[in-house]
Amino acid sequence: MSFDHLQYPIKTLPNGDRLNLNAYRLTGSAPGPHVYIQASVHGAEVQGNGVVYHLLDFFSKNEFRGSLTIIPTANPMSINTKAGTFTQGRFNATSGNNWNRNYQNLEEYPEIFSPKAWLESLNLAEETKGSIRKKFKHYLGESLKKLRAQKSEYAISDDVKLNLTLQHLASSADIVLDLHTGPKACRYLYAGEFEKEKVVDLPFPFTIIIPNEFAGAMDEATFMPWVILSRNLKAMNLENLDAKSFEAYTVELGSEESLNMNEALRDAERILSFLSKRGVLANDFHPTSSFEPQRAGFLKDYKTYFAPIGGLYEFTLKPGDHALKGQGLCKFLNFAPLEGAKELGGILEQCLGEIKLLEEAHIINHSPSAVVSEGQALYQVLEKTWSLK
Amino acid sequence: MSFDHLQYPIKTLPNGDRLNLNAYRLTGSAPGPHVYIQASVHGAEVQGNGVVYHLLDFFSKNEFRGSLTIIPTANPMSINTKAGTFTQGRFNATSGNNWNRNYQNLEEYPEIFSPKAWLESLNLAEETKGSIRKKFKHYLGESLKKLRAQKSEYAISDDVKLNLTLQHLASSADIVLDLHTGPKACRYLYAGEFEKEKVVDLPFPFTIIIPNEFAGAMDEATFMPWVILSRNLKAMNLENLDAKSFEAYTVELGSEESLNMNEALRDAERILSFLSKRGVLANDFHPTSSFEPQRAGFLKDYKTYFAPIGGLYEFTLKPGDHALKGQGLCKFLNFAPLEGAKELGGILEQCLGEIKLLEEAHIINHSPSAVVSEGQALYQVLEKTWSLK
Amino acid sequence: MSFDHLQYPIKTLPNGDRLNLNAYRLTGSAPGPHVYIQASVHGAEVQGNGVVYHLLDFFSKNEFRGSLTIIPTANPMSINTKAGTFTQGRFNATSGNNWNRNYQNLEEYPEIFSPKAWLESLNLAEETKGSIRKKFKHYLGESLKKLRAQKSEYAISDDVKLNLTLQHLASSADIVLDLHTGPKACRYLYAGEFEKEKVVDLPFPFTIIIPNEFAGAMDEATFMPWVILSRNLKAMNLENLDAKSFEAYTVELGSEESLNMNEALRDAERILSFLSKRGVLANDFHPTSSFEPQRAGFLKDYKTYFAPIGGLYEFTLKPGDHALKGQGLCKFLNFAPLEGAKELGGILEQCLGEIKLLEEAHIINHSPSAVVSEGQALYQVLEKTWSLK
Amino acid sequence: MSFDHLQYPIKTLPNGDRLNLNAYRLTGSAPGPHVYIQASVHGAEVQGNGVVYHLLDFFSKNEFRGSLTIIPTANPMSINTKAGTFTQGRFNATSGNNWNRNYQNLEEYPEIFSPKAWLESLNLAEETKGSIRKKFKHYLGESLKKLRAQKSEYAISDDVKLNLTLQHLASSADIVLDLHTGPKACRYLYAGEFEKEKVVDLPFPFTIIIPNEFAGAMDEATFMPWVILSRNLKAMNLENLDAKSFEAYTVELGSEESLNMNEALRDAERILSFLSKRGVLANDFHPTSSFEPQRAGFLKDYKTYFAPIGGLYEFTLKPGDHALKGQGLCKFLNFAPLEGAKELGGILEQCLGEIKLLEEAHIINHSPSAVVSEGQALYQVLEKTWSLK
Repeated sequence: MSFDHLQYPIKTLPNGDRLNLNAYRLTGSAPGPHVYIQASVHGAEVQGNGVVYHLLDFFSKNEFRGSLTIIPTANPMSINTKAGTFTQGRFNATSGNNWNRNYQNLEEYPEIFSPKAWLESLNLAEETKGSIRKKFKHYLGESLKKLRAQKSEYAISDDVKLNLTLQHLASSADIVLDLHTGPKACRYLYAGEFEKEKVVDLPFPFTIIIPNEFAGAMDEATFMPWVILSRNLKAMNLENLDAKSFEAYTVELGSEESLNMNEALRDAERILSFLSKRGVLANDFHPTSSFEPQRAGFLKDYKTYFAPIGGLYEFTLKPGDHALKGQGLCKFLNFAPLEGAKELGGILEQCLGEIKLLEEAHIINHSPSAVVSEGQALYQVLEKTWSLK
Repeated sequence: MSFDHLQYPIKTLPNGDRLNLNAYRLTGSAPGPHVYIQASVHGAEVQGNGVVYHLLDFFSKNEFRGSLTIIPTANPMSINTKAGTFTQGRFNATSGNNWNRNYQNLEEYPEIFSPKAWLESLNLAEETKGSIRKKFKHYLGESLKKLRAQKSEYAISDDVKLNLTLQHLASSADIVLDLHTGPKACRYLYAGEFEKEKVVDLPFPFTIIIPNEFAGAMDEATFMPWVILSRNLKAMNLENLDAKSFEAYTVELGSEESLNMNEALRDAERILSFLSKRGVLANDFHPTSSFEPQRAGFLKDYKTYFAPIGGLYEFTLKPGDHALKGQGLCKFLNFAPLEGAKELGGILEQCLGEIKLLEEAHIINHSPSAVVSEGQALYQVLEKTWSLK
Repeated sequence: MSFDHLQYPIKTLPNGDRLNLNAYRLTGSAPGPHVYIQASVHGAEVQGNGVVYHLLDFFSKNEFRGSLTIIPTANPMSINTKAGTFTQGRFNATSGNNWNRNYQNLEEYPEIFSPKAWLESLNLAEETKGSIRKKFKHYLGESLKKLRAQKSEYAISDDVKLNLTLQHLASSADIVLDLHTGPKACRYLYAGEFEKEKVVDLPFPFTIIIPNEFAGAMDEATFMPWVILSRNLKAMNLENLDAKSFEAYTVELGSEESLNMNEALRDAERILSFLSKRGVLANDFHPTSSFEPQRAGFLKDYKTYFAPIGGLYEFTLKPGDHALKGQGLCKFLNFAPLEGAKELGGILEQCLGEIKLLEEAHIINHSPSAVVSEGQALYQVLEKTWSLK
Repeated sequence: MSFDHLQYPIKTLPNGDRLNLNAYRLTGSAPGPHVYIQASVHGAEVQGNGVVYHLLDFFSKNEFRGSLTIIPTANPMSINTKAGTFTQGRFNATSGNNWNRNYQNLEEYPEIFSPKAWLESLNLAEETKGSIRKKFKHYLGESLKKLRAQKSEYAISDDVKLNLTLQHLASSADIVLDLHTGPKACRYLYAGEFEKEKVVDLPFPFTIIIPNEFAGAMDEATFMPWVILSRNLKAMNLENLDAKSFEAYTVELGSEESLNMNEALRDAERILSFLSKRGVLANDFHPTSSFEPQRAGFLKDYKTYFAPIGGLYEFTLKPGDHALKGQGLCKFLNFAPLEGAKELGGILEQCLGEIKLLEEAHIINHSPSAVVSEGQALYQVLEKTWSLK
């Protein structure tokens, strides 16, 4: 195994100090897929760092095929910014841009990136699945370089510099895992529609199936070029040249602001089990125990309950719970009914409300704070799920 | 003149208090256009409140035709949120959503809003420009009500509740003025491509012409339904029924965090001069002096200079300035070159840099803070402008 | 029982809305102590609101002696301010002033408040413990009114307006309970040295004994006048007139950002058990089960462990735990050792560190976030405790 | 002239990067005072960095006596933290501690620092003014080292680490200049009562005389040990051994968030003029033009006007203005009177208020934002000033 450290300066600071992005490349003893794993693009979501530690530990002790790019803290701006004792982690404190909705969409730059034109420029008679895949990775990397040059004309914004650096690092990957967490959450995945048959190999209890569309996230930014390549090959009746081997998942590892190394070991096992099925591990992989059943649902059935009234909320149902229509989801206290009251009896009870589930659902996550004003997100739940396994 | 106050509860707070949106309706003595004016959707941008004060004062003392909806502080969430002594004004402090990129796009809901189907449902032989315009306003209002009902199924998010309340209030307008400011900025407008011949009547020194597309802002949210109506009438060879009378502008009134009542009086004159040309004023309007020349340019030529290095910046060129390629735009101090230095001579000078203009441009705005990290916006400039008047 | 609602406008907002402080007065059927209970002076610390709900419920259904002032959300500014999804709760977002270190110290205003001069103005031969106590409450209230008038000369700051409003509302109390929480914390109390024999009646597992000094908090602000009165009576050899009946405690009810109504019921039982011993409850009070053992320690032995290095922390020991010198307190990940490394073996382990307990201690609280930069508070522990009961 | 760079790691970050404090030492060709100059302890207050640039430039080209310690950006935590486009600069974003109210008070640690005991340990018959001064600097430095060791027992907080690093760097100084700015402000100084005869040599238009007391700021933290030494020497009838040569000033260089290199050149001239009078400059110093008249007043007459009502404020009087009792200070807009109104006439005017000056004063600074809620600071003014020169 060979090990390399790559450092990318991301931001010089007003006082002359500098924030850096550090990536690590591990190369195995035999050819195989290239796996890209990043953690903590949202700075408060750090459970993935524990997972990365265990993965590095595993690969330092076990033979493997192919190579890995591992980025433990993929966003030096976000993870180093606090607001009070908590981490100002979901969006750029200056621009408000969500760090995971701001990747660049190559499709918007047809003069730089056109899979159709690129395919037409090849001597397709001489290509194979493997050669197309290899050359396309190169084309992708070159396209991202050109886009970066274009975006740098008047100097480059911090958001775009980080995004394009990460996208470029991931451009040679066959598998991309973007490790996140929810607010207070269970473990779940986002998987593209195109890979919904494959996701069963990555053993997390819930999967949200998202459309094959670009909406700004890392998984979409990395899988859409391959989806577009597939579409073009199909349109040209060249499906025989389509390796269909690219996969990208957003992996949600529980709750933000929290690190648990034991649970990270289990999370690493889920990922190693998946990589084992993709031929990365040289030897059989045996998790310490079997994984939970897996369920999936569509993004359109992933519902957000907003607070109908400001108040102090108790989150009765917990992430991972399954509950029926009409079941109590959460309670809230709001003492406004007491204002102007002449007695407590009959009025105090009005200060304590309950929100009920509108449809049967699995609870995926809820607000990390009990202090909620009207219109803030309370819960996200997945309705109409089915069993994957 | 009749005067009405409308209050919309926007957000109940965790402690039981409530934030409200207050709108004022002024109805003139004769029929005429409906004018909608809102200020301070971005909470730090308050010069428009001074303008609103002077407009209210004018209309309380002068006869006018038609009616006005005036909303002095259109975003009770943003204007009441501070971060330090400054106002946390451009985006929702919880979600990061820019308050002016988050209006709802009716086009995305064809089951609710379809101008084509709506037109086909009319007996077009009996319609006139005026009747179409009146009925379309009603259809727009009903569509927004339906969208709100749909968005409220799991309770409604604070962003969407505010946006839809404002969009609905503006749905009966013929003219929409959304009063903003830049960071440190001169006075300028955003105008849609479709109204670029009309904007000359609104005498601000600079106009940025934006595409007829929805990108989330209030002007786009209000003009796009009318643009789509026009497209449909044209496609149906019914241009004779197209009143083409709708206008919406984003009006940038100088710098944020600042109120100047004298300048507001002048800003009010610009708007009154415009409304006079649209038949709102019953009598002739004579500004105290003539207005500046007006120049325009396209959004694609509205360029952002980002900081190539973190440092402390002096903004040499000022908003409103015209400058040539190669001219110094700003200077910066970054003492990093001194780290490890053995002497000052020859090195100290490296701590003071300058950024030069890449192309001839008019300076529109710059960062409100001298403390800038790499990749933050320094300046916005308009290149390739032409004279409107 | 009579019930009254008192409303105090605390802050008019830039948009014209208003934040209010709401207090509720409950008066029992027979004379008895006046009990003042406030919650959520730090906006994220809301478990006390659940407790207040249960106390109001109890007193609406059970006879009691004396009276209560209950303020569910004592800080409308703090509880309504978010930074991201969390609550910007410990300090004023504009001034940085900790909301519970900013009460006013009457001792600093001898021209307004001088217990010695006040005692000398009385005809002490005619006074009793009871009359002194009653008159002193009145003197305290009048002094706070005068201080407020003085502080309002150039208008009053928001911090001081809130603090003086609360102090004045508490000035007629015999018992003050200020309900807070820690960050991630167990249940514990702060009690003044002067009341350290009495605190055993308030059954919380840990008590930190603080000096009889003013350091800005509500408990100190309310008990110090009585401590000073006692000192003066003693100096005048009038201890026979000293009722010594005033008590004030800061009550820490677990973790911030969290509400649990069942635990709040148990917390309410602790407080009712205490009030029962102070003669407030008309009938015997029987908690559902017996309370934990109680331990106490001095503030000087309440130690803060700061992060010796930035990193991602796992908090191994939990609030309430007892642990010995040398035991592992927490672990941290910091990947810096990998920078520039040529191999993983022997280096990866350096990325995972552990902090050990320097002395035997009970764990009281820890950081709510795993993302910690160097020099931030990790843990607070209480050393050298003794058994209270 | 010799030039040295000293670097102090201040904070390791969660991602492994590091913030550093950089100090520069310039040593002249002949003996003379040691001058300590720091800028930007509050991160938004950066005009001092421009001044430092010009001072470094001057000393690189001109002979001088003694030595200088120059710290351009004295707070790497504050200057690198943004909240929106502005700088989160006055207080620690996590703890709320004002960066300039948090220096350590050696007087609170008599076991570490006791000038009396230290003097008694000397053979005073053999000491001179000069030897006492030199040895006291050494004692001060050693005391700060001991305090740091004590504060580091459970690792050290970021606030204290920064403060003690700066205090220690300043412990060998004869002159300390702490370069700040106000919010929107004119140029002014804070000077200790003990140095009020000397401050005339530092030509800034206003000086606020503060008590010889410790209140947490850098100037106080550095001058109080010398004040205490003087008191002890006086108490021991050894005033002949008191060099009385120490001076420390907080220098307020206009407005925050702003850098102006031309004005910085003028500010540098003020400081060079002062240093010339203290014997630091080898040659005569001639400013480009004469300085303004100087006025002084006491801290007790430095008054803060708070907002009596939330609203949008126009700051009519400007920093540096002199105004009489009753003169208009600022205006505000608050549209609340319109709520529920049936007509505009007679009511609209109530939405525009004015605050008048309560006493004759010089305007020193005002809020940087027009958006002000009730109880926030509007203006700071200096009453009862006298002419210094």
